Amino acid sequence: MSSEYLFAHNHILGLDHLSVPDIEHIINTAESFKEISARAIKKVPILRGKTVVTLFFEPSTRTRLSFDIAAKRMSADTFSITASTSSTTKGETLADTARNIEAMMPDILIIRHPSSGAPHYLAKHLKTSVINAGDGTHEHPSQALLDLMTVKEHKGEITGLKVAIIGDISHSRVAHSDIIGFSKMGARVFVSGPATLIPRDIELLGAKVCSNIQEAVKDADVVMPLRIQKERQNDPLIPSFREYAAFFGINRQILQKAKPDTLVMHPGPVNRGVELAPDVADGSQSVILEQVTNGVAIRMALMYLVLGGK
Amino acid sequence: MSSEYLFAHNHILGLDHLSVPDIEHIINTAESFKEISARAIKKVPILRGKTVVTLFFEPSTRTRLSFDIAAKRMSADTFSITASTSSTTKGETLADTARNIEAMMPDILIIRHPSSGAPHYLAKHLKTSVINAGDGTHEHPSQALLDLMTVKEHKGEITGLKVAIIGDISHSRVAHSDIIGFSKMGARVFVSGPATLIPRDIELLGAKVCSNIQEAVKDADVVMPLRIQKERQNDPLIPSFREYAAFFGINRQILQKAKPDTLVMHPGPVNRGVELAPDVADGSQSVILEQVTNGVAIRMALMYLVLGGK
Amino acid sequence: MSSEYLFAHNHILGLDHLSVPDIEHIINTAESFKEISARAIKKVPILRGKTVVTLFFEPSTRTRLSFDIAAKRMSADTFSITASTSSTTKGETLADTARNIEAMMPDILIIRHPSSGAPHYLAKHLKTSVINAGDGTHEHPSQALLDLMTVKEHKGEITGLKVAIIGDISHSRVAHSDIIGFSKMGARVFVSGPATLIPRDIELLGAKVCSNIQEAVKDADVVMPLRIQKERQNDPLIPSFREYAAFFGINRQILQKAKPDTLVMHPGPVNRGVELAPDVADGSQSVILEQVTNGVAIRMALMYLVLGGK
Repeated sequence: MSSEYLFAHNHILGLDHLSVPDIEHIINTAESFKEISARAIKKVPILRGKTVVTLFFEPSTRTRLSFDIAAKRMSADTFSITASTSSTTKGETLADTARNIEAMMPDILIIRHPSSGAPHYLAKHLKTSVINAGDGTHEHPSQALLDLMTVKEHKGEITGLKVAIIGDISHSRVAHSDIIGFSKMGARVFVSGPATLIPRDIELLGAKVCSNIQEAVKDADVVMPLRIQKERQNDPLIPSFREYAAFFGINRQILQKAKPDTLVMHPGPVNRGVELAPDVADGSQSVILEQVTNGVAIRMALMYLVLGGK
Repeated sequence: MSSEYLFAHNHILGLDHLSVPDIEHIINTAESFKEISARAIKKVPILRGKTVVTLFFEPSTRTRLSFDIAAKRMSADTFSITASTSSTTKGETLADTARNIEAMMPDILIIRHPSSGAPHYLAKHLKTSVINAGDGTHEHPSQALLDLMTVKEHKGEITGLKVAIIGDISHSRVAHSDIIGFSKMGARVFVSGPATLIPRDIELLGAKVCSNIQEAVKDADVVMPLRIQKERQNDPLIPSFREYAAFFGINRQILQKAKPDTLVMHPGPVNRGVELAPDVADGSQSVILEQVTNGVAIRMALMYLVLGGK
Repeated sequence: MSSEYLFAHNHILGLDHLSVPDIEHIINTAESFKEISARAIKKVPILRGKTVVTLFFEPSTRTRLSFDIAAKRMSADTFSITASTSSTTKGETLADTARNIEAMMPDILIIRHPSSGAPHYLAKHLKTSVINAGDGTHEHPSQALLDLMTVKEHKGEITGLKVAIIGDISHSRVAHSDIIGFSKMGARVFVSGPATLIPRDIELLGAKVCSNIQEAVKDADVVMPLRIQKERQNDPLIPSFREYAAFFGINRQILQKAKPDTLVMHPGPVNRGVELAPDVADGSQSVILEQVTNGVAIRMALMYLVLGGK
């Protein structure tokens, strides 16, 4: 990367806004921050006196926790607002809620919202840095970035890799961000899943739709089953768990079609025995827990960079 | 203010307990703290090692967040207890809950409770400093103080101003604290609203009841519509939202009766198009977001002062 | 204690795993930490840069707050996960939830879980230090340790004391940990309560079952009524509150059978007038609030010691 390169984003809304040098710079920054979490004293003063607010309109444990841990390890003060406690239940608009928070002078607002585009809307109306922690079925940029970081750590380069994403592509913001991110970085992304859950126009993002899971997984360097949402079990678009596991579940047998050193990834939380067999989840090819570890480093990098990287 | 003046309160329960010099001292202290939130490093060590507990028996986003941000910007450790997680759901009395928290050696207890007088009751039984963050329909002192601060910033003096408060006066602790506070500081407070929501004896607090909103708003220096609570929409005392907006909503037309430089204030969250027209909420006379900003400064001042101001 | 003594536990799962020297060392450490909470600046840098996660699958105010305050007074960063926000509601297994948290590099995981043995299961699968904050009807070690500390402060020695525990022994993890702990330290523990709530095999833990409350309380140095859970009021095993108070409630009259300097203890929250008469709860023999104060010190000691005590 040229020494002239400058990271110029004060919001992180999606992978579609980030250039290849941006993505490389984020991953490199995260790599340099990663060892902080391995220290005996996991704390650096980089964001001391900064105010980070997480504003989550959907339940979440791990993403919120990951941002919170990342922020505090950089000495920021963090504040958490969840939908159930938010004034929006009292009829306030999203913009008013955000502007009211902004009037308390936060530095970063991390938002998860069920409506696609909500963080982009806020970024337009606020001076505070906005980081999208998942918007509807649209994007989940910090997840795709931690996925890219994890693959890069194992494979060195992303260019030329084959990535297979299996499952409910239609409703997965993780899939959308990963398709954009891996494609940008030069990988070929193949998707497969129940026909009702594969949108026709997903190929516009750069993915190739496979008619069966064998084709998608064949010679893949990365196999990523998506979570099948138990909450949506009564949705007629989704087969029963037993059927799903039989046709689309990633198990040891199907993995034999992939490259011998393929990586098994999952955005979590895993439904063991549904989209992923337990022995594969815990097997030597699985990097699921490394993804979680890298998530903290990526979020440290994002918060550091949107505030100017100093 | 004489150099002999001493702020002598270790609880903040309501505006009725505060003298004019007390109120001036709180506002002056808040003004001196305000710039901390505008710094790149928003943190001073004033309350380092102090323990601040917010104990909220009613849902709240912004008041709790404002106290939390204020405390952490002064380096206090903060802890949040909400009714749903509290042992009071297990049948414990309020006094026992508070005494148990006190046994963990907090420095400040910030309480919001649906029962008027709850903070006063605790202040009597505890040695810990108690700050009332809203008790029933009684008082909300930090809100009135931030209102006074905001008006003083714009008008220089409060004495002689005309303040119009419009809406459900009966159930509004904000209205009660503002009527007491603005009256003490020498302003004349006029109230108006649906007849069913204006208590006869409100004049005892110092307000003048106007039979119509035009009379209240005429030549006003401050116009403050109160939130009409959607939660109470089925209350027969309250007109429909459409009716309310038509008869009591603050819009550009009614504002022409006020002084040209009148301030539009609102305790938030705003029901746009009900008690306040959107263009007025976002207009040049609106100081609603300044109120929120000043809220952090007022709460910093209150916590600092109840602990001795050193 | 010999200078060769070494505290060798990196998990605290129950009193049954702790030796007499361990218990003495924990209490001595807590005594040395206790004054920190009485300082004007209640903060020491002992655990600076450490990450403490509380993972509570049952509602709790005071135990979680006590751990949280203890951790922050030692400068640790704390993170709270409750069942309602946890991914386990999305079908993830407990082990996966814990391993995912562990991948974010916490130092201590404090767990409360309705299943007996859950913390032991996690301790086996994690490298992170696990502290049991209550598991089902099994153990609640930090509560028993704070009880032992409180009794030791008042009586000097625990050996030879008579301790009466009254109430629902079957479902009380506090009773189980206290029976083990007080017995280990040389006290004689007597239990009494409704026959349906006294398990036959409780004597295996070291307690003596008394057929009536008078026998249990007679000449006791410590009288500890257990909370009768209002949540379980429709349980046919439990008498009505009125009946319970009449037969098993601790009041001034029954206390006359105990030693004149007997201590009245309660794990909280108290149902006044049910298991404990209000005048006794507030009387001169009650050390209930001292228990709460000591709870913070014990939890500071436990977190300090599981991380190596340096």
